[in-house]
Amino acid sequence: MAKGASISGFPEWLPSERVVEQRVIDTVRKIFELNGFIGIETRAVEEGASLLKKGETSKEIYLLSRLQDVGYESDTPIERRLGLHFDLTVPLSRYVVEHSGHLAFPFKRWQIQKVWRGERPQEGRFREFVQADIDVIGNGELEDHYEVELPLVMVQALEELRKFGLPKATVHANNRKLSEGFYRGLGLTDIEGVLREIDKLDKVGADEVIKLLVSECGADEQQARACLELAELTAKDGTQLREKFDELCTKHNIGQERDAYQLAREGLDTLAMIVDEAAITRPGSVIADLKIARGLDYYTGSVYETFLDGAEQLGSICSGGRYDSLASQGNKKYPGVGLSIGLSRLISYMLHTAGAQASRVSPAVVMVAVWNEDDRLECNHIAAHLRERGIAADVAPKAAKLGKQIKYADKLGIPYVWFPADTSVDAEGSDHDEVKNIITGEQVSADVKSWQPDSVYARQTVSLPN
Amino acid sequence: MAKGASISGFPEWLPSERVVEQRVIDTVRKIFELNGFIGIETRAVEEGASLLKKGETSKEIYLLSRLQDVGYESDTPIERRLGLHFDLTVPLSRYVVEHSGHLAFPFKRWQIQKVWRGERPQEGRFREFVQADIDVIGNGELEDHYEVELPLVMVQALEELRKFGLPKATVHANNRKLSEGFYRGLGLTDIEGVLREIDKLDKVGADEVIKLLVSECGADEQQARACLELAELTAKDGTQLREKFDELCTKHNIGQERDAYQLAREGLDTLAMIVDEAAITRPGSVIADLKIARGLDYYTGSVYETFLDGAEQLGSICSGGRYDSLASQGNKKYPGVGLSIGLSRLISYMLHTAGAQASRVSPAVVMVAVWNEDDRLECNHIAAHLRERGIAADVAPKAAKLGKQIKYADKLGIPYVWFPADTSVDAEGSDHDEVKNIITGEQVSADVKSWQPDSVYARQTVSLPN
Repeated sequence: MAKGASISGFPEWLPSERVVEQRVIDTVRKIFELNGFIGIETRAVEEGASLLKKGETSKEIYLLSRLQDVGYESDTPIERRLGLHFDLTVPLSRYVVEHSGHLAFPFKRWQIQKVWRGERPQEGRFREFVQADIDVIGNGELEDHYEVELPLVMVQALEELRKFGLPKATVHANNRKLSEGFYRGLGLTDIEGVLREIDKLDKVGADEVIKLLVSECGADEQQARACLELAELTAKDGTQLREKFDELCTKHNIGQERDAYQLAREGLDTLAMIVDEAAITRPGSVIADLKIARGLDYYTGSVYETFLDGAEQLGSICSGGRYDSLASQGNKKYPGVGLSIGLSRLISYMLHTAGAQASRVSPAVVMVAVWNEDDRLECNHIAAHLRERGIAADVAPKAAKLGKQIKYADKLGIPYVWFPADTSVDAEGSDHDEVKNIITGEQVSADVKSWQPDSVYARQTVSLPN
Repeated sequence: MAKGASISGFPEWLPSERVVEQRVIDTVRKIFELNGFIGIETRAVEEGASLLKKGETSKEIYLLSRLQDVGYESDTPIERRLGLHFDLTVPLSRYVVEHSGHLAFPFKRWQIQKVWRGERPQEGRFREFVQADIDVIGNGELEDHYEVELPLVMVQALEELRKFGLPKATVHANNRKLSEGFYRGLGLTDIEGVLREIDKLDKVGADEVIKLLVSECGADEQQARACLELAELTAKDGTQLREKFDELCTKHNIGQERDAYQLAREGLDTLAMIVDEAAITRPGSVIADLKIARGLDYYTGSVYETFLDGAEQLGSICSGGRYDSLASQGNKKYPGVGLSIGLSRLISYMLHTAGAQASRVSPAVVMVAVWNEDDRLECNHIAAHLRERGIAADVAPKAAKLGKQIKYADKLGIPYVWFPADTSVDAEGSDHDEVKNIITGEQVSADVKSWQPDSVYARQTVSLPN
């Protein structure tokens, strides 16, 4: 991040860093579009009532006031004030309900936008960042197969980002119905409470979670241990997952005829389908991890978190799940499944840990040198010719000494300098156009109508240290 | 704009409209990059102190409050609160000062971002919209030639947008020094006041402006009429502009030896250079128009407004100018010149007046049909193969009746439907893969490793009514 960014939590990139961010955004968008997702953009603001409705982040909202209304804000109830969106899921569900008559369902959409969290400033937490989301929303019903396909699209996108220094990503999947059914089968009733405590497992450890389940969720010691056993269950495929789960149910007297077991089994079947199909399409990309809980209360089925090999300190970098009741209109429901990548943190990792670097700051491939200011129009025309042929071109800012002009190109990373024919009396240059690769030093005659940069130097690229 | 957008002034596009917006943004960005401008993105917020410093829009600011701080906002002075940026020029000048050590000057940057105006909601005014800006910022000094080159880059971008239904654009240029020198030569001192009244000429007419100059700016009748004469001066080129201006000065006794004349002449020379060079590079694209005043007080030289043939009701759609003192740090000045397009209004025009339409909503070229759900994995693999070859592909959401699947593709505008080989007992389909163009009806055998869509149907495009 640009040093000295003057407002904590609002990252801002230097131009060379922005090249990396832009490339990452373009790459992710391309994968989403290849997979047939439709791009939308929602307004940055929602009404307070929408923002306060759902989700763990409901306390981290920025509300807006018009400058003229300062001091009178409290006259308007928060529900009717405008606030900045803190994610792209709440806006999507509002958008779908509002425009349902104009959409084809299932509606597969991608959205890459900034979101804001009105948090207290603290080290390492972003208050403004870019999210990249995909969701598919059904009208009334939504097929299960999207619950494996969407995480796989994210895996494909994250895989593409490895060239910018992102480590391998693995999606950890679980299912709310599975957890809820099992907890109910044990006799527990505070399901949200149990999920909240299980969510702390990696942070505080098993012993502490057991204590919390007992003290906060009305569990006895044995129920609490059973919750832990479920969270720690691992399996190499769907079949083994089913076997181990059934063993656990037998051990804890959750009979297969009970409603609780049936609910759990529904979730289990979806989870088994997900890991088995993912194993065929992209082996090792999605695993079942029964401790994944997710904080948000609107998930009703699959839940996902994604971790990076060797960058666990970043926590989950791509999360989501299935939600059956986030969007509704009267009796009509719009069930959805979606995942969201927090891009800004990843870009920070690529830049500052992986060392991703843009090959050049300027998009220009070539800078036209200017022998003297009287020639500038001619130089502009050379540049215009090149641009017409799709070659990005700049013109030296000033007819300064040639060394100074080349230094400017070099500072911007522009690989070629174009020397127009120099027809002046005290000519410094050649009597015909030439172009120099200032990285290799090679200089050749060139015609503005046909010259092509070497393909290696033509493109602005991002690379990693060797 | 999407009908029923629920918050006035915050436009939101339907997916098919968003295709047009995205295409416009991509097109403008491409032109900026071809011209060697460097893309940056600044945070959405600035400190109140920066936002209040400059510009006509300083009264139209949205300030932020954290939800937790609601009711205590007034404890923090507005200067230290955060607000949303209302343009991209104020953030740029802050960015340049903050990161000057990391930038190469002159710094040519493009920026396409949303801005917000905390206005009272009113018909047809956007409170959130997308701006596309280019600026070049010098360190200490900045060559004049950018004052003709930047408007020409905008003309090139606007020219590219004509394929989406934008009428021909003409940049009207003036120069603050020219106006100020002339007014001072007349003996007027309230220069800002005179500019403000002249700015109303098109709206209220000459007689009213004369009255206002007399009542508000301390002008007598003759001075006021002279100001009008200057505003109404037209010229076909720089030479004629100089001649007519000198005539006007002689008529009003502004001697060439006076400081006021010298100041005016400096502005005049720049303006003459602009129209003459623009006439060579892009005839008819930039004209001198001496009534252009611009509301913002930070301009110090050239000022620009841009009007569309036959869409004058939109007012100026691309404005800007030269500012010598917007950004500074101690004794160091960073003079700049830049222009800004308000994209959202143009997109609204293209969609709703010009009738621009996306060829399809979905980025997918082809949808793979699904004979029955057991085949879905195979269908996904066909789609994956196509995507690997760069062909955007979707898969039917459900193994519904074929007619229903084709209808879904049709609704999204996907031109091709892929029929996988149907090996089931009661096969409906062929024993080998086939692909159908659902627009032309043509159906052919196809191999996932080699099939290419017809180039006409391959691309998602935007077109105009015939």
